[in-house]
Amino acid sequence: MNEEVRLDFQRTERVGFDEAVLCARKSDAQLATIMDRVLERGTRCLLTRLEAEVFGRLAPAYLERLDYDPISRTAFLNWTPPAEQQAPDIAVVSAGSSDMPQAAEVLRTLAYLGAPTRQFIDIGVAGLWRLLERVEELRTFPVIVAVAGMDGALPSVLGGLVPGVIICLPTSTGYGVSNGGETALHAALASCAPGLTVVNIDNGYGAACAAFRALSMVRRVSVQDGKGRPNA
Amino acid sequence: MNEEVRLDFQRTERVGFDEAVLCARKSDAQLATIMDRVLERGTRCLLTRLEAEVFGRLAPAYLERLDYDPISRTAFLNWTPPAEQQAPDIAVVSAGSSDMPQAAEVLRTLAYLGAPTRQFIDIGVAGLWRLLERVEELRTFPVIVAVAGMDGALPSVLGGLVPGVIICLPTSTGYGVSNGGETALHAALASCAPGLTVVNIDNGYGAACAAFRALSMVRRVSVQDGKGRPNA
Amino acid sequence: MNEEVRLDFQRTERVGFDEAVLCARKSDAQLATIMDRVLERGTRCLLTRLEAEVFGRLAPAYLERLDYDPISRTAFLNWTPPAEQQAPDIAVVSAGSSDMPQAAEVLRTLAYLGAPTRQFIDIGVAGLWRLLERVEELRTFPVIVAVAGMDGALPSVLGGLVPGVIICLPTSTGYGVSNGGETALHAALASCAPGLTVVNIDNGYGAACAAFRALSMVRRVSVQDGKGRPNA
Amino acid sequence: MNEEVRLDFQRTERVGFDEAVLCARKSDAQLATIMDRVLERGTRCLLTRLEAEVFGRLAPAYLERLDYDPISRTAFLNWTPPAEQQAPDIAVVSAGSSDMPQAAEVLRTLAYLGAPTRQFIDIGVAGLWRLLERVEELRTFPVIVAVAGMDGALPSVLGGLVPGVIICLPTSTGYGVSNGGETALHAALASCAPGLTVVNIDNGYGAACAAFRALSMVRRVSVQDGKGRPNA
Amino acid sequence: MNEEVRLDFQRTERVGFDEAVLCARKSDAQLATIMDRVLERGTRCLLTRLEAEVFGRLAPAYLERLDYDPISRTAFLNWTPPAEQQAPDIAVVSAGSSDMPQAAEVLRTLAYLGAPTRQFIDIGVAGLWRLLERVEELRTFPVIVAVAGMDGALPSVLGGLVPGVIICLPTSTGYGVSNGGETALHAALASCAPGLTVVNIDNGYGAACAAFRALSMVRRVSVQDGKGRPNA
Amino acid sequence: MNEEVRLDFQRTERVGFDEAVLCARKSDAQLATIMDRVLERGTRCLLTRLEAEVFGRLAPAYLERLDYDPISRTAFLNWTPPAEQQAPDIAVVSAGSSDMPQAAEVLRTLAYLGAPTRQFIDIGVAGLWRLLERVEELRTFPVIVAVAGMDGALPSVLGGLVPGVIICLPTSTGYGVSNGGETALHAALASCAPGLTVVNIDNGYGAACAAFRALSMVRRVSVQDGKGRPNA
Amino acid sequence: MNEEVRLDFQRTERVGFDEAVLCARKSDAQLATIMDRVLERGTRCLLTRLEAEVFGRLAPAYLERLDYDPISRTAFLNWTPPAEQQAPDIAVVSAGSSDMPQAAEVLRTLAYLGAPTRQFIDIGVAGLWRLLERVEELRTFPVIVAVAGMDGALPSVLGGLVPGVIICLPTSTGYGVSNGGETALHAALASCAPGLTVVNIDNGYGAACAAFRALSMVRRVSVQDGKGRPNA
Amino acid sequence: MNEEVRLDFQRTERVGFDEAVLCARKSDAQLATIMDRVLERGTRCLLTRLEAEVFGRLAPAYLERLDYDPISRTAFLNWTPPAEQQAPDIAVVSAGSSDMPQAAEVLRTLAYLGAPTRQFIDIGVAGLWRLLERVEELRTFPVIVAVAGMDGALPSVLGGLVPGVIICLPTSTGYGVSNGGETALHAALASCAPGLTVVNIDNGYGAACAAFRALSMVRRVSVQDGKGRPNA
Repeated sequence: MNEEVRLDFQRTERVGFDEAVLCARKSDAQLATIMDRVLERGTRCLLTRLEAEVFGRLAPAYLERLDYDPISRTAFLNWTPPAEQQAPDIAVVSAGSSDMPQAAEVLRTLAYLGAPTRQFIDIGVAGLWRLLERVEELRTFPVIVAVAGMDGALPSVLGGLVPGVIICLPTSTGYGVSNGGETALHAALASCAPGLTVVNIDNGYGAACAAFRALSMVRRVSVQDGKGRPNA
Repeated sequence: MNEEVRLDFQRTERVGFDEAVLCARKSDAQLATIMDRVLERGTRCLLTRLEAEVFGRLAPAYLERLDYDPISRTAFLNWTPPAEQQAPDIAVVSAGSSDMPQAAEVLRTLAYLGAPTRQFIDIGVAGLWRLLERVEELRTFPVIVAVAGMDGALPSVLGGLVPGVIICLPTSTGYGVSNGGETALHAALASCAPGLTVVNIDNGYGAACAAFRALSMVRRVSVQDGKGRPNA
Repeated sequence: MNEEVRLDFQRTERVGFDEAVLCARKSDAQLATIMDRVLERGTRCLLTRLEAEVFGRLAPAYLERLDYDPISRTAFLNWTPPAEQQAPDIAVVSAGSSDMPQAAEVLRTLAYLGAPTRQFIDIGVAGLWRLLERVEELRTFPVIVAVAGMDGALPSVLGGLVPGVIICLPTSTGYGVSNGGETALHAALASCAPGLTVVNIDNGYGAACAAFRALSMVRRVSVQDGKGRPNA
Repeated sequence: MNEEVRLDFQRTERVGFDEAVLCARKSDAQLATIMDRVLERGTRCLLTRLEAEVFGRLAPAYLERLDYDPISRTAFLNWTPPAEQQAPDIAVVSAGSSDMPQAAEVLRTLAYLGAPTRQFIDIGVAGLWRLLERVEELRTFPVIVAVAGMDGALPSVLGGLVPGVIICLPTSTGYGVSNGGETALHAALASCAPGLTVVNIDNGYGAACAAFRALSMVRRVSVQDGKGRPNA
Repeated sequence: MNEEVRLDFQRTERVGFDEAVLCARKSDAQLATIMDRVLERGTRCLLTRLEAEVFGRLAPAYLERLDYDPISRTAFLNWTPPAEQQAPDIAVVSAGSSDMPQAAEVLRTLAYLGAPTRQFIDIGVAGLWRLLERVEELRTFPVIVAVAGMDGALPSVLGGLVPGVIICLPTSTGYGVSNGGETALHAALASCAPGLTVVNIDNGYGAACAAFRALSMVRRVSVQDGKGRPNA
Repeated sequence: MNEEVRLDFQRTERVGFDEAVLCARKSDAQLATIMDRVLERGTRCLLTRLEAEVFGRLAPAYLERLDYDPISRTAFLNWTPPAEQQAPDIAVVSAGSSDMPQAAEVLRTLAYLGAPTRQFIDIGVAGLWRLLERVEELRTFPVIVAVAGMDGALPSVLGGLVPGVIICLPTSTGYGVSNGGETALHAALASCAPGLTVVNIDNGYGAACAAFRALSMVRRVSVQDGKGRPNA
Repeated sequence: MNEEVRLDFQRTERVGFDEAVLCARKSDAQLATIMDRVLERGTRCLLTRLEAEVFGRLAPAYLERLDYDPISRTAFLNWTPPAEQQAPDIAVVSAGSSDMPQAAEVLRTLAYLGAPTRQFIDIGVAGLWRLLERVEELRTFPVIVAVAGMDGALPSVLGGLVPGVIICLPTSTGYGVSNGGETALHAALASCAPGLTVVNIDNGYGAACAAFRALSMVRRVSVQDGKGRPNA
Repeated sequence: MNEEVRLDFQRTERVGFDEAVLCARKSDAQLATIMDRVLERGTRCLLTRLEAEVFGRLAPAYLERLDYDPISRTAFLNWTPPAEQQAPDIAVVSAGSSDMPQAAEVLRTLAYLGAPTRQFIDIGVAGLWRLLERVEELRTFPVIVAVAGMDGALPSVLGGLVPGVIICLPTSTGYGVSNGGETALHAALASCAPGLTVVNIDNGYGAACAAFRALSMVRRVSVQDGKGRPNA
């Protein structure tokens, strides 16, 4: 059983952020083993898709080291918040309360990684004016994560209005033809607004990592020489 | 062969407009027989999906009775334009030149049926301002046909801005995940803007008929008693 | 958390009816917040997809303001029935008891909006005579909502018999190839009866809004000048 | 190359009718070899999906032995029509001219097998009265093949009206969601009219064989002892 | 609520067998109303998809009139078995225990309708010899229902060996690509053995009705005049 | 016809790059009108999906203003190359010659936009060593476009090795289950390597625009104040 | 009921290994009957997909004869482990803990069949170095089973590095587009690394049988004459 | 352009056979460059999917070095047949003439690789006796490639009768639900006969490589020490 968990502790060196643990489909024993490894090594870890009832079954020794959020279903193991908060560079935009869990997974993952964010939750296409009021502000962000389910029209509208990196996160919210998120996914991919990029349905963790990659490139360059080339 | 064509000449009495002939997959001989029947009976007929090269093979006797438009691939047999043009009641809205054939099929079908229309061709979501400039005008139309391919975001935006009947016509324009029009179809069906209705992909004829049904109800009532009940 | 709910209170001005709240995937806390906002503002609200067990958990303060129906899973908050009932303008047609929840969502939504309806529940294609007996009556309605699952043959038959606006509501009733409602959806879209329009699978709320849009146009015009143009 | 064609000449003994040759995807050389085998053996053969241009390339020696029909794309090799025609036992029902090729493949295959048929070509659901006029006559047939594309509503209506064996032949006629025939196939399978059976899209040959199987059972029994058991 | 149930009591006259009640998605109250109607009228009724736990909740007054079978999930209301059993005309063939519920629905429906059957349960393709041992016996049946899930190879093998009517009943047994039964359905439709017919996935009731239609035609004819034409 | 083309000349101000013209499905006349508008205005334009045979039919007046490349099917109208070439910031990576057209569309679009690129064409997963030899170099690029068809394994491998922004461009190369590019698309979306982003199948233009958005953010910041916020 | 279970006890003679019992969808009574048959006959049996809660309900008489493993959900009835363990010939490779159940089904099935295996659990593509460290060892195995979910990139990388038989086992691990395992299945089928073979999603038993077939051929030949032909 | 072709000349060392060139979607110029590289290096090469009309356009210098077969669309460059032919180890089984191109691609690829084969072309399930006559012979082959389109029932029947490695090659032969080969693919994957493996639709080259991998393991072992472990 020991062999079952060989974490990729060198990932940060290679890609700039550490491996997260997808808790779905893992047994309680597997989760405990993983956390033991992390604690032994004295490092930290992000856990995603950790259901509240699984969290509730964890031993107290783990609980005191975990910062858990039930809406995003994420937990931070052995994590300490950064001393000072920077101005937000990443905007996380969604239409309302139904996409909240996925937006929260983005926000929490970026918090874990130390990237300052700002959330915009009232940016729906059916009430277009709420989006238009925020356009000028949104144009100042280098990276925007657009969370959208159902018909997924938000990224198309946004993509024609702002210049930054746009990462679309389609969600499985919906029923009938939008059940499972395929319509939102396809609408984002087929958008007539050019230069949008897309991640898998409900993959808030992945959208956050993509945003973090972009932000890292923006920052690495700026503190160096402005030549648009990071030192790997 | 004679038996092969039994037109439904009573359709107008039952549903308010006459049967059209879908020319796709019909042989030249079948088309000739159909037109003979119509001409014998002294009535008129709409032909849809009539490719230019099929049209070019028709006998001169038919050609002089046909009003053909190659973009919409429609022809009017034995048709005379109405004496005076009414103010337009139906708006046909699309984003640009790629959806032109489908929009044209809507416009031509409604012209054949005698319903006055107005076309708006610059209403794309990626350039949102062009849509916003027209909103007040669009709000005055009782019926709007929204033609959209690719990500199909136009109907969702429109549906949150205007009160009239909205009939979405998804088009097969696009490639990759939008190839064949399924993404535009699903986006219209899953729209977060409530009260949109949808017809089959590329079914410009059907969208026009749906618009005509709505307009007929609007008009029938108004010349009667205002009780919202037509005399069937 | 406060920011999570920004209702679109101006929707009625723009599109003619107010925003509904889709309760599926919302937490009890989110629902409470939404109802608080509505009550603070002194307005009313329609809740859809409100499961009986969620309804049962609501605080008494909400319960006394709610008119709840378990079959349609709808609730009216702060709603008062209209003083007098008009003659019905919208027919809601279905084949039998299996499509009852979806038909009920249509009827309840239209009741909330103040549009008088009449239900026809025995209109199945397999027993065609029951449909034929009602054709003359159905022909008098300006708007018909046709609810159908499984093979979805009802709209095609109906579409060849009546002149009014027909809005097809496919349902997820069925198993095997009709599981989830895709067959009923596609059959309605591909119907050989022209001028049908379609909404998303199980979207009774959307079908009702579409019917209401059509009825609004019929009525607005008739009390004005009969020119087929509403004053927006 | 010789080995490439080993026909199943014993099929008639086993299942009651002889093997047909699906010409699609076969080279001219393969077709010639097959026909040589049949002619050497002095037997007969049905060829299906034989395109007119392939037929036109065949050597004269074959042409004089072939009875070819371009609409159904079928040819009879070495076939002689039966001396006297029986009263028709199998009805082949379709809505109009667009499903003619598939209906013709059914009719021609049954003609080849010596089963008398009667064609009904005006049985569309959108013009319901044409179907209703024929119901009493259709009720007298022990076997009906119902050919339908697009929304495939015909079998459902028919299935509620007649007692005989109903074999649904969905066709690939249509566009958008009905492109390729899947909607017609699924509608027939999901029909609310019980006891329908279905064959593959555009499989006119298969529908005819299924009808022939049913007819064989009807006839075998009746000339024997009425116990409902054929002598195999 | 009364209006919710209008049974089609004339179905037997039209198609030869009475309407069944699909219990899935019906409330307990709806089921009770339906049974009341049947009992009031003094007729009988078949209930399908009646789960054991729903059955267990029924009132005693119904239970004593019901003949229930939990494997097939069918119940006969007010039914009396036929006085004498005829020799079986319909073979129901399946590969083993996993398709038992669907096969049982076929057998029970045919028992209800009074059609004698014989079950063959060891007819799997992976152990071909078990099928080959039974071929001669199977060839004597005018009608065979072939029940098959997973890869659905049984109908293809059977179809090349026997002359009777073959009705394929694909089942949803399986996982991965065969999950839901689509592979078995498609394999039956695409079979290279000609003349197979197919019903919807898991539609044991429909397969039985199709078998009954075929058997009715066989029997009606044989007791008359052998001309292959029933008196409708 | 004049109205048919209303270009979005303000797009550059809003999103940072100008509108391109998708030539597929546009008539020769529409293309001419578009180019006239661009030339009248004295601006420039990128044309994509311009087939060689359409290009060959253009009038000489256009040809002399166009820089055309048949492999990528792109043309630059009224374009002048930048005076000096910067060091490349964007790597375009593909496995070999079959994905060349899509990779070329990325490279040409970025050339048009003035973004320096470097192409890596031998980066296939089946010959892993060719990829491993280049990893250190690839790690220095802030933005990588990974072009991959068939099984789409390249982005997953790359994503675990480099820290930059990765934009996956799935291609329609392949047959069987990879026909049309869906497998490559889904593999990129479902990658176990975190932080990948994806564009539509064969959307080389979109991938280039996404890369350009990222690069713009990197550059805008560096010439300012390093705070990770562009001046919009 | 007796007839319901006719096991294929001759399978070993025909194909080299005995029939397994898929417990999913079987009732407790059916499982008991099957085990009785096996015990009566004095032979052994493998049970797959035996859920822990079903296992817990079995009678003690069975439990003492069963070797059960909850992770793989397999049980060995009447099985005795081989006396001495051979060197492993089959490598079972997977990326980590989420695919453990499927990998375990492979390992347990091969253990039951007496084929020695070796498990490699840290072979993920996102951390490529862990795979590269093991390549030389993996190249010595004649048969490798590669277990992979999500994007299924592992088989493609492996296929370019080792010469042995590679059997890909896609798993249903994942969400969004990889939900259900279709992406992993398609990626394995479309792999650019030639000569991979694939089994159904989650079919660990089938992958093991395929590996056993290959190993049997390797061994049979080697103890004979080296001519590459087994004695059947 | 030079860089466009970097062949993987070391593949043989790694996986045991050399890289093939998929000619589909490659330009004439690309093909010429590839062949130049091969000829310069003095090695050999297999070309697949080389259409006859592309072959006809090649320069004479290439033609004299190429062994081309139009049915399989394969060409061998610089290839010399082996001096003596071994007894066949691999059986290639198919039902008839429609799957000939795919079977031929398997046979030609194995001929190129020097693996002796034997073709069985009359092994169809609809005429089962032809298969049964050959079973004993087929049982002697260590590796069988089973080529099947349409319903793909052949592999399931074969898999229950023979002990060797079975590689299923589904073909795109067919129409309706079997169009494109998905039904044959899924039927092979879902087969109830255990231990089958599958390759992509129409991937005759891949099936041959898989057969060659298996044969290599059989042979390598037998000429060494019989321990079931090749020397890599």
